[in-house]
Amino acid sequence: MNWNIAPINREIEGELQQKIDLKTKPIGALGQLEHIALQLGLIQQSLNPELRNPQILVFAADHGVAKAGVSAYPQEVTYQMVMNFLNGGAAINVFARQHNIQLKVIDAGVNYNFAGADGLIDAKIDFGTKSFVSEPAMTQAQCIAALNEGGNLVEEAFEDACNIIGFGEMGIGNTSSASMLMHLLTNIPLRDCIGAGTGLDNNGLERKRTVLEVALDFHGKKANPMDVLSTFGGFEIAMMCGAMLKAAELKMTIMVDGFIATSAFLMASQFNREVRDYAIFCHKSQEKGHTLLLDYLNAEPILDLGMRLGEGTGCAVAFPIIQSAANFLNDMASFESAGVSNK
Amino acid sequence: MNWNIAPINREIEGELQQKIDLKTKPIGALGQLEHIALQLGLIQQSLNPELRNPQILVFAADHGVAKAGVSAYPQEVTYQMVMNFLNGGAAINVFARQHNIQLKVIDAGVNYNFAGADGLIDAKIDFGTKSFVSEPAMTQAQCIAALNEGGNLVEEAFEDACNIIGFGEMGIGNTSSASMLMHLLTNIPLRDCIGAGTGLDNNGLERKRTVLEVALDFHGKKANPMDVLSTFGGFEIAMMCGAMLKAAELKMTIMVDGFIATSAFLMASQFNREVRDYAIFCHKSQEKGHTLLLDYLNAEPILDLGMRLGEGTGCAVAFPIIQSAANFLNDMASFESAGVSNK
Repeated sequence: MNWNIAPINREIEGELQQKIDLKTKPIGALGQLEHIALQLGLIQQSLNPELRNPQILVFAADHGVAKAGVSAYPQEVTYQMVMNFLNGGAAINVFARQHNIQLKVIDAGVNYNFAGADGLIDAKIDFGTKSFVSEPAMTQAQCIAALNEGGNLVEEAFEDACNIIGFGEMGIGNTSSASMLMHLLTNIPLRDCIGAGTGLDNNGLERKRTVLEVALDFHGKKANPMDVLSTFGGFEIAMMCGAMLKAAELKMTIMVDGFIATSAFLMASQFNREVRDYAIFCHKSQEKGHTLLLDYLNAEPILDLGMRLGEGTGCAVAFPIIQSAANFLNDMASFESAGVSNK
Repeated sequence: MNWNIAPINREIEGELQQKIDLKTKPIGALGQLEHIALQLGLIQQSLNPELRNPQILVFAADHGVAKAGVSAYPQEVTYQMVMNFLNGGAAINVFARQHNIQLKVIDAGVNYNFAGADGLIDAKIDFGTKSFVSEPAMTQAQCIAALNEGGNLVEEAFEDACNIIGFGEMGIGNTSSASMLMHLLTNIPLRDCIGAGTGLDNNGLERKRTVLEVALDFHGKKANPMDVLSTFGGFEIAMMCGAMLKAAELKMTIMVDGFIATSAFLMASQFNREVRDYAIFCHKSQEKGHTLLLDYLNAEPILDLGMRLGEGTGCAVAFPIIQSAANFLNDMASFESAGVSNK
């Protein structure tokens, strides 16, 4: 597959930086908000970037590996949480409502028959992946279908005039997929890529490590991105990956959530490294591998609140800060317009 | 002076924590949002805490020590920025508007005759403090007047049904005051309490250090809070200090901004340590002393965005996150209500 992502045109950068520097504040005094404002301006090629019709897409899917006891929760929690999303009771519902972010819930491959549940977007690839302990999680055809489906959903958002989009996930077992992707694509030792997920105790964590080591031995060291994603990915991870790549193609701003979303982003950057310039890293998750993964990507996350919930909650909670970055650039007075003495 | 601050009643804590833990998320997965939700519930003695009519009060004042060349900007910037606040063009205006936070601008002691400028609250103690290099910054009577005035303004907010309030400041030279307060009240070496403020270069920073060392030698080691505040404080710092103490008396939630606001909070906690339970630390400033000061206070700031602007901007940018904490506690479904399997 191929994504046609334009590298950011940096011609406007000097003018943007000057606009930032002439605002009534010491140079650099808004810290990371200034970096975000610059990035938004570059992505939108505008001195007055605006966030329009923000959306968060939450992709849900099940994982064959969950049956190997790698999670603190049973697999049924995936579909139960999807119902919770549809009923408006999950954390991501609360935070999306708070910030008028449109929320879409997608069945990417949950092991449950939702029978046309109201409000659910049906993009089911299958009733969960196979367990990568003993076989590839999905076929290459399934993987491509998931990548395409993610892209289609972003195109729909784009057609609704959305220009900033975040991606969340729900899938019992999906930190295991993310850890495998992270290890294979970064070469960071597998052990450092594995964390407690939804809350494994020490015994559970040890079991998870063993399961993932066994799986790695079984499949051997894959390197080709499509192979890695098909073998160890989840449908929701593949869909997020395709969605991110399409968002960059369409010059939308991508909000990257926590550990699993960042593993999807890492995957996306292997398919096309230009995706990087369109991504804002919303938070540092408490999940163990995330700090190393963000460091590997040289990413500067907005929040570090010890959250580890997924669902896109990091995107939603960080959204008002991205909005603050756009707002100061658009609405603050300059030294000259305000009649304030500069240094 | 005396503040009658009730220690937080913790009887409700168990019930609050249980409500948090039964939300549809792994235990602790919302990280610091959970700590904030618990604190809001304790302050308001409610399982359903709400943020009502938030306000930010920005206190402006001038500092005699500014004439000793401790700032990158001339003193006139204080009144010019006050005019900018009144015209709605400063960063704090932009962020307060974004979150529907009522903003009040107070002349605590600016060296300028505003002649009843529209929208400005006149609480001027004097036309700036004296330079503490060679005399006390203010008299004890002025200090008490400032503390009281801060309290009065908070009472007005309280009467307008505000239950969460932040405090910002503007005052060329006020990081110097804050550094002296920090050193004298914490015993952290003076050098570690001094930073670049609005953006001193290395020469400027060296001059600032020398000026403050000379001032410390001149006055000797003060320890009594009122002495420290009168000798080295600013009118805006004293007013913020009184405001924080009154807010705690009235069981309001206090949003603590950056380095200067935190020095005012440190001062307040010397007058009455119970103020601590009512305070939420909104951000870690890039100003050098702030990290050490937050550590000293065992504070867990919400944001760490490399901001160093003052004005209450940290409060305003962090406000939606405090709101998110209240919202998840009030609006998320529980495992039972959502029919989701618990561990």
